[in-house]
Amino acid sequence: MERVDTILTGGIVVTMNQQFDIIHDGAVAIQAEKIVAVGSSADIAARYESDRVVSCAGQYIMPGLVNAHTHVPMTLLRGLADDLRLDVWLMGYVMPTEREFVTPEFCRLGTSLACAEMIRSGITAFADMYYFESDVAKATVQAGLRGVLGQSVLKFPTPDAETYENSLEYTAKFIEEWKGHPLITPAVAPHAPYSTTQDILKDCAELAKKYDVPILIHIGETKLEQDDSVEWYGQTVVPWVEEAGLLGAKVLAAHCVHVTPTEIHTLHEHDTTVAHCPTSNLKLASGIAPVMDMLEAGLTVGIGTDGPASNNDLDMFEEVRLAAILAKTAANDPTALPARTALLMATRQGAEALFLGDVTGSLEVGKLADVITVDARPAHNMPQFNRDLNAVYSRLVYASKSTDVLNVICNGQWLMRDRQLLTVNEAELLKEAEAYALKVDAFLHAREKDILSKLLVIGGIERGESFEVQAKVIIRDSDMIQKLLDHPDVEVLKEIRYRQYDTYFLFDDESKGRVRYREDDMLDAKGEVQSVRSRLTFTMPTKEREFNSAVLLSHSRFISKADRPLRFYREYFQPQHERELHKDRRRWHILYQGVLFYVNLDRVLKPELADTFVEIKSRTWSAKDAENKANRIQEMFKILGIAATDIVRDEYLEFEGV
Amino acid sequence: MERVDTILTGGIVVTMNQQFDIIHDGAVAIQAEKIVAVGSSADIAARYESDRVVSCAGQYIMPGLVNAHTHVPMTLLRGLADDLRLDVWLMGYVMPTEREFVTPEFCRLGTSLACAEMIRSGITAFADMYYFESDVAKATVQAGLRGVLGQSVLKFPTPDAETYENSLEYTAKFIEEWKGHPLITPAVAPHAPYSTTQDILKDCAELAKKYDVPILIHIGETKLEQDDSVEWYGQTVVPWVEEAGLLGAKVLAAHCVHVTPTEIHTLHEHDTTVAHCPTSNLKLASGIAPVMDMLEAGLTVGIGTDGPASNNDLDMFEEVRLAAILAKTAANDPTALPARTALLMATRQGAEALFLGDVTGSLEVGKLADVITVDARPAHNMPQFNRDLNAVYSRLVYASKSTDVLNVICNGQWLMRDRQLLTVNEAELLKEAEAYALKVDAFLHAREKDILSKLLVIGGIERGESFEVQAKVIIRDSDMIQKLLDHPDVEVLKEIRYRQYDTYFLFDDESKGRVRYREDDMLDAKGEVQSVRSRLTFTMPTKEREFNSAVLLSHSRFISKADRPLRFYREYFQPQHERELHKDRRRWHILYQGVLFYVNLDRVLKPELADTFVEIKSRTWSAKDAENKANRIQEMFKILGIAATDIVRDEYLEFEGV
Repeated sequence: MERVDTILTGGIVVTMNQQFDIIHDGAVAIQAEKIVAVGSSADIAARYESDRVVSCAGQYIMPGLVNAHTHVPMTLLRGLADDLRLDVWLMGYVMPTEREFVTPEFCRLGTSLACAEMIRSGITAFADMYYFESDVAKATVQAGLRGVLGQSVLKFPTPDAETYENSLEYTAKFIEEWKGHPLITPAVAPHAPYSTTQDILKDCAELAKKYDVPILIHIGETKLEQDDSVEWYGQTVVPWVEEAGLLGAKVLAAHCVHVTPTEIHTLHEHDTTVAHCPTSNLKLASGIAPVMDMLEAGLTVGIGTDGPASNNDLDMFEEVRLAAILAKTAANDPTALPARTALLMATRQGAEALFLGDVTGSLEVGKLADVITVDARPAHNMPQFNRDLNAVYSRLVYASKSTDVLNVICNGQWLMRDRQLLTVNEAELLKEAEAYALKVDAFLHAREKDILSKLLVIGGIERGESFEVQAKVIIRDSDMIQKLLDHPDVEVLKEIRYRQYDTYFLFDDESKGRVRYREDDMLDAKGEVQSVRSRLTFTMPTKEREFNSAVLLSHSRFISKADRPLRFYREYFQPQHERELHKDRRRWHILYQGVLFYVNLDRVLKPELADTFVEIKSRTWSAKDAENKANRIQEMFKILGIAATDIVRDEYLEFEGV
Repeated sequence: MERVDTILTGGIVVTMNQQFDIIHDGAVAIQAEKIVAVGSSADIAARYESDRVVSCAGQYIMPGLVNAHTHVPMTLLRGLADDLRLDVWLMGYVMPTEREFVTPEFCRLGTSLACAEMIRSGITAFADMYYFESDVAKATVQAGLRGVLGQSVLKFPTPDAETYENSLEYTAKFIEEWKGHPLITPAVAPHAPYSTTQDILKDCAELAKKYDVPILIHIGETKLEQDDSVEWYGQTVVPWVEEAGLLGAKVLAAHCVHVTPTEIHTLHEHDTTVAHCPTSNLKLASGIAPVMDMLEAGLTVGIGTDGPASNNDLDMFEEVRLAAILAKTAANDPTALPARTALLMATRQGAEALFLGDVTGSLEVGKLADVITVDARPAHNMPQFNRDLNAVYSRLVYASKSTDVLNVICNGQWLMRDRQLLTVNEAELLKEAEAYALKVDAFLHAREKDILSKLLVIGGIERGESFEVQAKVIIRDSDMIQKLLDHPDVEVLKEIRYRQYDTYFLFDDESKGRVRYREDDMLDAKGEVQSVRSRLTFTMPTKEREFNSAVLLSHSRFISKADRPLRFYREYFQPQHERELHKDRRRWHILYQGVLFYVNLDRVLKPELADTFVEIKSRTWSAKDAENKANRIQEMFKILGIAATDIVRDEYLEFEGV
């Protein structure tokens, strides 16, 4: 007779093992963090004894659910803004709120609250992507859940890093701190192809391989993402990330709504796993992922709730049911993705998607004790037919609710007993969360009259570059520019000429930023207007940093098409001041030592200025790269025979008389 | 100070009235079955007093949800068979089980159980379509819910009627019995276009108009339904039912997944309302209904769960959420069907869809007190942002669960108080339901080796005619047939000739029915084989009735394509006996006095019989019509100069030596 910590007995054991064994009147014995036996109640009673024998009559005893994709701290942003277009939602509400509020404390609180909700709905493991992931880890361990926690890396500044290099440093430290923890698998989370660069992806992959940790990333979530990828890089997303070397690491790709058969094949070749998020995909109108195609191709596909800001909850029962029924209509086949397969994706296959298939996801001897019990007999799931063994899966998938979960054990630790949470003080957390919500409400309310919000309301908007390296000088003679263009280190890619008519809307409160209505009249060789383009640009107050007298601007800039007359925007934004600036600009796109720069030769027509200016600009996502480019701009000025001291630091708008 | 029965106070009143008023710290006063006041808690406290003042702090007070389409007794068939193709599910499992088990008692029990589940999930009104609807009504009244109850009418025999004429008689009686009841609206429910005829639809519409009650019907649920309609009638479903005069009644059409813009326009012109059932449509792979198009066309669209045999529950919170998110992906627009509209469809607009918009669906003075309260502050719905008033709808639609419903009042009567059911003894019902489930399990288990089941397993199957009127005579001379064909009352539509090779599989237990493998070699004018067609027919033991010596057969016959060799079927069905019958058949499709009949002139080649036979057949869905046709067959025999006494009653198979 062997003594064990816990025996769950008298339930319907749904093992989700390779043979899909179901044991009616079955039991599970747990010692420390592991499952030591699975069998009939009689068999287990004959071999094991315990001070904690828990009767599970009328309950399913099954593996805890695996939430393959979420952003747990965003629980604090649940329902912040719904029924909006993705860009308006993300850039108008979520990102500004994150910039203002996301701190280590925010992440700990949001994670704790999410863990409470996940425990209640029978989740024992999850894959997260967010910021301050070390704090997410602390709260996860406190709640007792298993987490694959991906520290986000983006080309934009984030709440926890000014540059992606900072993110990578933080990530390396985070991995070293948590690697080997019994509950936590640290991971690297380059956000998405469109929010990173190939260099960033390469660095992330190297970091992940160095420490043998997973990569978490969003892939092919929207059609726009794929269209942009083709436009920008001449290839779809998967080959582009493959080219960057990303798929050499252990990658868990979230969404994969818009992936071609070839891309599915590529993902399979690299053993990339997938997190399917049907609620989020439907709610954001992203589309329906080709789940059956992925499964048929042999891909390992888990199911995820996505973050509560886009779902709006962490209910895996809802998610599994939706995955099962949506696949049928997508495949035009009611036998597609049957209940058993859907539940598999949320348990054993989900664990495999998180690269945890050898330790969790099914009830098998030697696996970690991640076990839940579910009320098998609520009124909404009665009566029951047992002619077909699969009816158990059908009941769990099509009619069970998350609120039917009664007990939750993770890594051998009891997290919920008879619906009572044991590791999380929910009431306390809710109070703190409410205090946050009040502050966020106040912040957003104050912003309602914001310029950016107003821009958002009237149309789509694009986030511009996060760093622009630029410097401007006065040259005596326009022809001097030829010295640079003829230099052996320079290759001219393109030359254009246009008249630029800028109208600036300025506000007394400079922290509000400013709006520029810009009309470009493109000129042909004869100086005739060829085409006209109008845009609005919103610039937030600039944070400046200087490198070798070339100015590095770190600013957030948003651009949108201006399809209404200037008058409309004047009345709409009601600026306190307005300035006009007309330029005649010749622009060259050049490669200098193989690096792309823009060279502008400007004459300011209104107000008329005597001088001619040369501006050299480049864009970058990296602080280090910005410094390199500043040095090269410096070298180009030397070629033009201009000393660093000749550099004009003011923007045109700040010149006297403008 | 006015005395009232109940005051619900201190909650967030979500009125769903025309102005979408939301009253924070609001109250509702109820007297008898009506709402007498809606206002701020302070205002109501100043004007009304009651012995029952119920604090609803932290709760939403809102109209009960309206389930616009379901089949409540099918709660007893929940999870009977899932992940199957529609025909296999319906004809292989649901219909045979219904034929065996559906009785008045079954309907009362299933309805009571469904009412328990609906009350728990905040539903106060529903539209039902099933059999023994008078018993459904009794159980509904006992539970205290509001029901629009449609008595089903089909061309097939049903559990409560041998013929559709019987159904119509039952329906008329049912309407007279229940019309004017405070909770019940009786209705006529012709099942669907494909399961009725234009005559049936016309009779149903006339009955509905006579009593001013609604018609409930399934319309355009599948693409197959539309394709078949075009093939059979040369028009899509909506014009076909319009032509039958159906849309002149008050029609609530369920599903409408496959309806064209023109059909939507037609439905709108006739003020037909729609019940959208997204879970059922996805699960059965029917498709995604064009909800946004219907709403934009001005149609009144409610939301329904459909029956628990195809959903598999009665959870309107799930249904509303799915309706909201699915419409976004269907429209490729995340702003489509915002939360407020989705909730409207489940409340006021849902009531309008049931033609109850003037009495329920919103919290307004003078409307009936169909009110629920919902926990506004469970962990899975926190924190809360109030910057945007629509956030209340977003929380209710995207994150509330049916298990958050705390209190339910219908028609002024308390049905649930603090999650305790007051009108239904759930435990008792569950016991009875389990007893049924055991019997059904045993029945289906015994059937597993059934012939019909075996047929189902190997392929699609079609239900054949429900009545066949036929008679057979021996004629001395083949040319005698010309007398009939040349008669002025006869118009020959078509003439064909074929060799028919039948192999019958027979079983010792005749109640098993029999299978016929039939190969038809179509012959051209020269007697050359033109084409070959193979089919399997399964015939259940025939119930016979005679009219004027013409035999009326009432049998269930299933036909499926036979795409495998005879040998396969022989091994598969393992018949105890086998018989062969080869015929040379000439067949005419004729109109006799405008009515379609088939005339066969048969010579039996194997076993070789000396006689030549004439068979005259016709199909019908109506017992009365069958009698008429039997009379006409009699007349045609007279034209041929054959006396009724010459009629051969045996099937060819029963002839000696066959």
